[in-house]
Amino acid sequence: MTEPTAPLVLRSQDAAGVRTLTLNRPDAFNALSEAMLEALQAELDAAAGDDGLRVLVIAAAGRAFCAGHDLKEMRAEPSLAYYQRLFAQCTKVMLAIQKLPVPVIAQVQGIATAAGCQLVAMCDLAVAASDARFAVSGVNLGLFCATPSVALSRNLPRKAAFEMLVTGDFIGAEEARAKGLVNRVAAPEALAEAVAALAASIVAKPPVALAMGKALFYRQLEVGMAAAYQDAGQTMACNMMDACALDGVQAFIDKRRR
Amino acid sequence: MTEPTAPLVLRSQDAAGVRTLTLNRPDAFNALSEAMLEALQAELDAAAGDDGLRVLVIAAAGRAFCAGHDLKEMRAEPSLAYYQRLFAQCTKVMLAIQKLPVPVIAQVQGIATAAGCQLVAMCDLAVAASDARFAVSGVNLGLFCATPSVALSRNLPRKAAFEMLVTGDFIGAEEARAKGLVNRVAAPEALAEAVAALAASIVAKPPVALAMGKALFYRQLEVGMAAAYQDAGQTMACNMMDACALDGVQAFIDKRRR
Amino acid sequence: MTEPTAPLVLRSQDAAGVRTLTLNRPDAFNALSEAMLEALQAELDAAAGDDGLRVLVIAAAGRAFCAGHDLKEMRAEPSLAYYQRLFAQCTKVMLAIQKLPVPVIAQVQGIATAAGCQLVAMCDLAVAASDARFAVSGVNLGLFCATPSVALSRNLPRKAAFEMLVTGDFIGAEEARAKGLVNRVAAPEALAEAVAALAASIVAKPPVALAMGKALFYRQLEVGMAAAYQDAGQTMACNMMDACALDGVQAFIDKRRR
Repeated sequence: MTEPTAPLVLRSQDAAGVRTLTLNRPDAFNALSEAMLEALQAELDAAAGDDGLRVLVIAAAGRAFCAGHDLKEMRAEPSLAYYQRLFAQCTKVMLAIQKLPVPVIAQVQGIATAAGCQLVAMCDLAVAASDARFAVSGVNLGLFCATPSVALSRNLPRKAAFEMLVTGDFIGAEEARAKGLVNRVAAPEALAEAVAALAASIVAKPPVALAMGKALFYRQLEVGMAAAYQDAGQTMACNMMDACALDGVQAFIDKRRR
Repeated sequence: MTEPTAPLVLRSQDAAGVRTLTLNRPDAFNALSEAMLEALQAELDAAAGDDGLRVLVIAAAGRAFCAGHDLKEMRAEPSLAYYQRLFAQCTKVMLAIQKLPVPVIAQVQGIATAAGCQLVAMCDLAVAASDARFAVSGVNLGLFCATPSVALSRNLPRKAAFEMLVTGDFIGAEEARAKGLVNRVAAPEALAEAVAALAASIVAKPPVALAMGKALFYRQLEVGMAAAYQDAGQTMACNMMDACALDGVQAFIDKRRR
Repeated sequence: MTEPTAPLVLRSQDAAGVRTLTLNRPDAFNALSEAMLEALQAELDAAAGDDGLRVLVIAAAGRAFCAGHDLKEMRAEPSLAYYQRLFAQCTKVMLAIQKLPVPVIAQVQGIATAAGCQLVAMCDLAVAASDARFAVSGVNLGLFCATPSVALSRNLPRKAAFEMLVTGDFIGAEEARAKGLVNRVAAPEALAEAVAALAASIVAKPPVALAMGKALFYRQLEVGMAAAYQDAGQTMACNMMDACALDGVQAFIDKRRR
C-alpha cells in the first residue's frame, strides 16, 4: 500500500497548532527501524523549535499502532556495540517526547507492542481505540523488554507491569485505562475525534504555562517532596509573573472571558 | 453570612481527641488568602504540640471545600518576591500536615480546586461527598498548578495527574476514589458521619504507634528499598519496646481485650 | 494436624522447574517464627543457586496464608537488640525474594496479615483466592506495621496504603486486585490451577531473559528516568547478544515455532 518513496513519518497540522505525526510503515506494523527512529527524531527536533506548535499527536497508519523494533534489521547485525547504539537511539527519541515543551498525545489503534507500547507509555497522554491491545512481548522471543519497562513501570502499578513483562500477555484498552497506561478509550470510529477533543482542551490553555508546567511535572517526580516543592514554588512564581497569567487571573477577577 | 469578626478557621474537638478545623470563608469558597494560610499554620503548630490530639480533620464551611489561592489578593501585588513568599508560605502549611504526628483527614464537599485540591492530596486520608468535584484549574487562567502537581502526582497515576493539570477538567468523587485521591465516598448528608467513623477507627489505636508509623511512612517513600527497610526495621524495633505495644501484644496472646 | 517433626517449609517441584514452597505451620496460621524465617531463608538460598529452577511459588498449608510474626515468641524476649535482629532477619528473607533470579508468585488463601501481607507484597506476582483477605493489623496491638509498609506502599496508591496501616482494616481479594496488591483472583477451588497457569506462561520464556529482566526491573525503579534508561539499554543490549534471544528473534523472522 505504501509507495517506496512515501515518508516514514507523515506530518500534518491544523490551524490551532495541533500537529499530527503519523507513523507510516503500515505493512510493517510501523516497526521502529533505524530509519523510522531517525525520522521521528528529526520531527521531534523540529517540533521542539517551533513556536507555533501547541500539541503533538503521535498516530499511526494502518491496522496497528506500532509493533516495536524492526526485528529483521536488528537481527542482521548482531553485535553488542550495534545494540547499544540502537537502544540509545531509541531512548533519545523517547526522552525527546518528554522534553518537548508541548503535551504529546498517543493515538492508539490495533496493537502497541514492545517499544510500541513504550511509545504509548512515554507520551504525556494517550487515547486508545476500544479494540487496541498492549503488550511488552519481547520476552516471548527471549528478549526482555528492558527499556519499555522503564516507561511501563512509571505508568502502571508495580505488579501489573511485572506481569506484562514476564508473561508477554496482551491487555485490552479498558484494562490499560484502569491501570493507568491510557487516559481515554473511544470507539474505533471515534478515535481521531476523541484525540481532537483532548487536544482542543489543551490548545485553549496558554502555552507558556503548559511548557513550564510540563517540564516541572517530570522534574519534580524524580526528587523528594521538599525539593519538589522548592522547585514547584519557584516555577509557579515565575509562571505567575508572565503577562499571560497576570492577564488571565485579572480576567477571572473581572469575570471577563479571555 | 460570615461576620467580619468570625475566625477564618474554626476549631472544635470531641472527647476522644478528634479535632476538626473548619475553613470558614464560605462566601469566598474558603480561598487560601494569606490570612487563611496564617490561621491554618497557627492551628497546625498548635496541634503539633498538643498531646491530647489523636486525629485532625480539615473540613470547610459552606458549599465548597476550598477554591485554592485568593486570586484577587494574589493579583494585587504582582512581584516575583511576593509570589515566592506566598508559595513558600503555602508549602509550609502543606508540609506541616504531613509532619503532624496524628493522621489528618480531609472532609470534602463541593469543589476542591487548585491549592484546594492540593490540600486534599496532602492530607493522609480523604473522605468526599459523592457530589464533590476536584480540579487543578490554574492552567485555565495561564497559571499551571505547579505546587499542587507535587501532591497530585504522588496520589494519582502519572497520566491521570498530567491530564488534570493540562486540561483543568473536573473529576467526580467516584473517579477521585478510583484514582487514589480520596479513600472513601459518602452521601452528602452522611459525610460527617463517614469521617467520624474513619476517625473513630484511628482513635482506637495507640498514639505512639501512629506517630512513629506516620513519620516512617513518608520517610521511607523517599528512599530506595534497602534504606527503607533499614529505617523501618529500626522504627519497628523501637515501637515494639514501647509499653503500649508490649502490653498490646501480651493482651493478644492472653486473648484479653485491651 | 502437623506432626512435631514435619518441616516448617515443604518443598515440591514439577518437571518444568516450578518449585512450590509451602509454609507448614497451619495450626499457627503459618506465623513467621524465627525457625520459620530460617527455613524460608534456607530455601531461598538454595533456590538462588539452582539452575534448574524456573518459577518459585510461595504457598501455605491450612486455612490461612500467613498471620505475620509469631507474637508469643516475639513477646518472650523483650529487648531492643532482639527486635532489631528479628526485623533484620525478616527483611533479609523479604529482599531475598526480589533478588532471586526467577519470578516468585504468592498463592494466597485465607488471611494474609502484617508480615504475611508484606510477604504477598514482596513477591513479584500474587494470585489470591476470592475469599482471601489482607490487613496490616499490627496497629491494633500498638505495633505499627513499619516493615510491611515498605512493601505495601510500593504496591498500592499512597492513601490506600496509609488507610490500611492506620486502621488495620481488612480488604478483600477483589479490592486487593483493584489496588495493585495481587494480580489475579480465582475461586478458592481453582487457586492452585490459576497459579499453575501463570507459572506455565512464565516457564515458557527463556530463563536468561527473565533473570536479566527481573533484576533490571527493580534496579531501574530506584533511580531517575535517564539513569534507568541507561541501565535498561545496557541490559537489553547484553540480553540480545544471548544465543537464546538471537535464536528467538531469528525464529520469529522465519515464522518458526521455537
